[in-house]
Amino acid sequence: MCRWLAYYGTPVLLEELLFTPRHSLIDQSLHSTLGAETTNGDGFGIGWFGSEKTPGTFHSVEPAWNDRNLRDLSAHLRSGLVFAHIRASSGSPVQQTNCHPFRHGHWLWMHNGVVRDFPRVKRDLVLAIEPDLYPSIEGSTDSEVFFYLALTLGLEDDPPGAVARAVGLIEDVGRRHAVEHPIQMTVATSDGSSIWAFRYSSEGSSRSLFFSTRVDTLREQHPEVAILQQLSDESRLIVSEPLGDLKGAWNEVPESHFGVVHEGQDELRPFAPIAPA
Amino acid sequence: MCRWLAYYGTPVLLEELLFTPRHSLIDQSLHSTLGAETTNGDGFGIGWFGSEKTPGTFHSVEPAWNDRNLRDLSAHLRSGLVFAHIRASSGSPVQQTNCHPFRHGHWLWMHNGVVRDFPRVKRDLVLAIEPDLYPSIEGSTDSEVFFYLALTLGLEDDPPGAVARAVGLIEDVGRRHAVEHPIQMTVATSDGSSIWAFRYSSEGSSRSLFFSTRVDTLREQHPEVAILQQLSDESRLIVSEPLGDLKGAWNEVPESHFGVVHEGQDELRPFAPIAPA
Amino acid sequence: MCRWLAYYGTPVLLEELLFTPRHSLIDQSLHSTLGAETTNGDGFGIGWFGSEKTPGTFHSVEPAWNDRNLRDLSAHLRSGLVFAHIRASSGSPVQQTNCHPFRHGHWLWMHNGVVRDFPRVKRDLVLAIEPDLYPSIEGSTDSEVFFYLALTLGLEDDPPGAVARAVGLIEDVGRRHAVEHPIQMTVATSDGSSIWAFRYSSEGSSRSLFFSTRVDTLREQHPEVAILQQLSDESRLIVSEPLGDLKGAWNEVPESHFGVVHEGQDELRPFAPIAPA
Amino acid sequence: MCRWLAYYGTPVLLEELLFTPRHSLIDQSLHSTLGAETTNGDGFGIGWFGSEKTPGTFHSVEPAWNDRNLRDLSAHLRSGLVFAHIRASSGSPVQQTNCHPFRHGHWLWMHNGVVRDFPRVKRDLVLAIEPDLYPSIEGSTDSEVFFYLALTLGLEDDPPGAVARAVGLIEDVGRRHAVEHPIQMTVATSDGSSIWAFRYSSEGSSRSLFFSTRVDTLREQHPEVAILQQLSDESRLIVSEPLGDLKGAWNEVPESHFGVVHEGQDELRPFAPIAPA
Repeated sequence: MCRWLAYYGTPVLLEELLFTPRHSLIDQSLHSTLGAETTNGDGFGIGWFGSEKTPGTFHSVEPAWNDRNLRDLSAHLRSGLVFAHIRASSGSPVQQTNCHPFRHGHWLWMHNGVVRDFPRVKRDLVLAIEPDLYPSIEGSTDSEVFFYLALTLGLEDDPPGAVARAVGLIEDVGRRHAVEHPIQMTVATSDGSSIWAFRYSSEGSSRSLFFSTRVDTLREQHPEVAILQQLSDESRLIVSEPLGDLKGAWNEVPESHFGVVHEGQDELRPFAPIAPA
Repeated sequence: MCRWLAYYGTPVLLEELLFTPRHSLIDQSLHSTLGAETTNGDGFGIGWFGSEKTPGTFHSVEPAWNDRNLRDLSAHLRSGLVFAHIRASSGSPVQQTNCHPFRHGHWLWMHNGVVRDFPRVKRDLVLAIEPDLYPSIEGSTDSEVFFYLALTLGLEDDPPGAVARAVGLIEDVGRRHAVEHPIQMTVATSDGSSIWAFRYSSEGSSRSLFFSTRVDTLREQHPEVAILQQLSDESRLIVSEPLGDLKGAWNEVPESHFGVVHEGQDELRPFAPIAPA
Repeated sequence: MCRWLAYYGTPVLLEELLFTPRHSLIDQSLHSTLGAETTNGDGFGIGWFGSEKTPGTFHSVEPAWNDRNLRDLSAHLRSGLVFAHIRASSGSPVQQTNCHPFRHGHWLWMHNGVVRDFPRVKRDLVLAIEPDLYPSIEGSTDSEVFFYLALTLGLEDDPPGAVARAVGLIEDVGRRHAVEHPIQMTVATSDGSSIWAFRYSSEGSSRSLFFSTRVDTLREQHPEVAILQQLSDESRLIVSEPLGDLKGAWNEVPESHFGVVHEGQDELRPFAPIAPA
Repeated sequence: MCRWLAYYGTPVLLEELLFTPRHSLIDQSLHSTLGAETTNGDGFGIGWFGSEKTPGTFHSVEPAWNDRNLRDLSAHLRSGLVFAHIRASSGSPVQQTNCHPFRHGHWLWMHNGVVRDFPRVKRDLVLAIEPDLYPSIEGSTDSEVFFYLALTLGLEDDPPGAVARAVGLIEDVGRRHAVEHPIQMTVATSDGSSIWAFRYSSEGSSRSLFFSTRVDTLREQHPEVAILQQLSDESRLIVSEPLGDLKGAWNEVPESHFGVVHEGQDELRPFAPIAPA
């Protein structure tokens, strides 16, 4: 499985998100405490929205902790909407096309978890992907197939609905192949304006997911923390496991829920798969 | 497209096949004269049969001409049945899972050429692969899909028949998608005892393919060439383009033919695709 | 040897410099016409100045023509001062620490050419480097040693003087080791405000170097070329070999000369090595 | 720091040394229990003696646990004298030229530990290397400089003496630069006939080092362990931390000692640095 981070807010240097915090994502690549594995060293990726139409991405098969390009890019790229992902492979090869975040058009997607018994269900899932989308699949992970299922089922128009239908399909196909708990997931996706983040698993015991407290509240509680002065009230982090140890800074996304982070009031709502008709 | 070499005969150090000859395969990675491209720098691979049940393979995404591991392994590995392949990508990513030779069980497979308009026909071809074999596909090339079609259609029992049926299927699917000349190929495959090498293209104008003259004949004509003294009479090379410039050493495989190299008399026979029923 | 490009002017997307032009630098990585080698596939690097104090760099050991990260970063990074370099190794290993441009503090450096018989003269050259600078050397190329010699001899205060003294030293050490023509070079260096570009060789027959004609002149001659409307009059490219085929666009830097590109009037002056006292 | 393994004995498939044992070296790359770091993911290398004059080596910058080439080579290479090393960088870049084992002629060398404050002492140490050997240094690690010092000081004629003199020199240079404890080490070196393995540190608290009990003794104590039937009495493993949990199988090399493994009776002797005259 993996660790990931999504950021929405005042544009910052990526290194302030990835390297500077205590127990940063890069630190988690060697010393994850809440992950399924301590080490997340099977490649990584970042995605960021800037002034171009599509987000930029950078993927590498080297462990994040010692990647010189990541360190340098992070010190020179600023963005107000950032995805970052460190990978612990659950079997598929370590190659750039298997590194998250995946991109299609101006959408980004990243996943921590697993489609269980993927070799057994892969063919049926791939068959359910829109034939026009199928040739764009580049890697061999369950996560990318999941992304293309969501795209097939309406991600660009209705992200929560499309993810619910994709999860419903994966559960349906899995159960037809006698997979007990077909999916385990936290997922983030973005179109450059909003971030949707989901926490769900067939067994009702999902991987951890946290969102940061509103910056104005934190600023009031912690007037001594300098960086909070620079961030807009609405700046928000969503993470697999908390960074740093600022009291009151982190809130767990409840089991079977998803959040939406965007301009205006963010939202937290229940999530339930929609089985195929 | 690509360049490749297959060797059957007296066990030799791989470097004698890959580096030592004038206009060696490694030289062709920078300076191919008969290939579709001059440079074949998009990764490479070797496969060799030794004393274990399955062949060994080594794949790298770095250009062959400067790969230190390839140079070192070649100087320390001996084998009597060797495949080597240098890649010029026709579009799919440069990653180890896209490097030839591909292996399944104790079979090796490598391809120079292209399944034309692959994104358009890929889904139909993949659907024709035996569902039990499907999850073993690791990369995203046309060549690997072609291998799995051949496996589906009986490669392990009847290699020439299976390749003929796979090509027939690719041409059938291509034509249904309005692809004028669906396939261009030279292919080599081996089970560790024999090598089968095919030259064919839908347009009847296939990439070049050569086999070496019998060693006893060459030895008689060229008593001065030391290495010929060490090789058994039956040692044979099959290559995309000739190595060196030894007079009388190379014979072209005719258009739409295949050769079989094994113990005893080698064979050269016509090849024709078998369309699906 | 290698190919390189330096750009100063209106901030542009890097892809407009690296990928868009006919006979672009990336095209030259496969098909150089003026280089010592046709293929420059032994890694590459880019450096760019933006809003941070130091320039960003990105290095990769994969050939530039198929590097997905380079393509993506180039489509998302804008800069008004860019270095790009594609490498054809003259012997040292293909590794990121041997990829140009090299960076020290806010200085960039890149080199096409060779310090001849480098293994023979390396120790003496390295001994001449300021001991405090010595531990910062990361790779094993002649080009990086040349950079650190220039830094030792005053690059940050007087770039043309420091390069002249470094070349003088290299020639002196070379001749003491019986190297006939100790150096062959085109070099570019920048502090983020100016670019200095040098053309010189001990044998008086240096690798090619070109600078672009002033944009206002080109705009007058070619009112039909859209991109010229977007560039400031002062925008300037310096390249190992011309991009595209726009008539009147390219001027050769004369043998044993260097140019300075900066705000205000650019300069072209004679260059001569300064032998050690 | 790092983990390593050296094997002398009956030729075996490398995978039986690297992958098969419980708590194998590859397992230690993710879950080291005695190492300075849990994760040893900054590249790896193997070296093996076979029928050629020089040993073969294979180095990779990917973590060992997921390297497909390592898994495949290990399943197809047999050797009776094997070195294997997994790296946790103490600062120098992750690149093949920094991966152990290092090779010079027919000698292999690998190191776990550190030359402390290496940037401060590097120049003086490099100056002490024989000028003819100097250009052969390819990477930037303390370990390779240590190897070249040992070569300079007579490794090929008197390995224990040369290592003692190299350590004495490193301690002398370190102390002149106010480094309190200049070296921490376990080192293995081999010429293809013998293995010398050293345990020493300036502070008298060295990294762990173990050698396996004689096979005939183990076989008597554990008649149920099948693999012991296949190994010669003299087969021997030397490791940074024990593999598996076979009772009585492992003996610690005492502080400031070295062992020699070769045909005939192996030896264990005290080790003390020899200061420069």
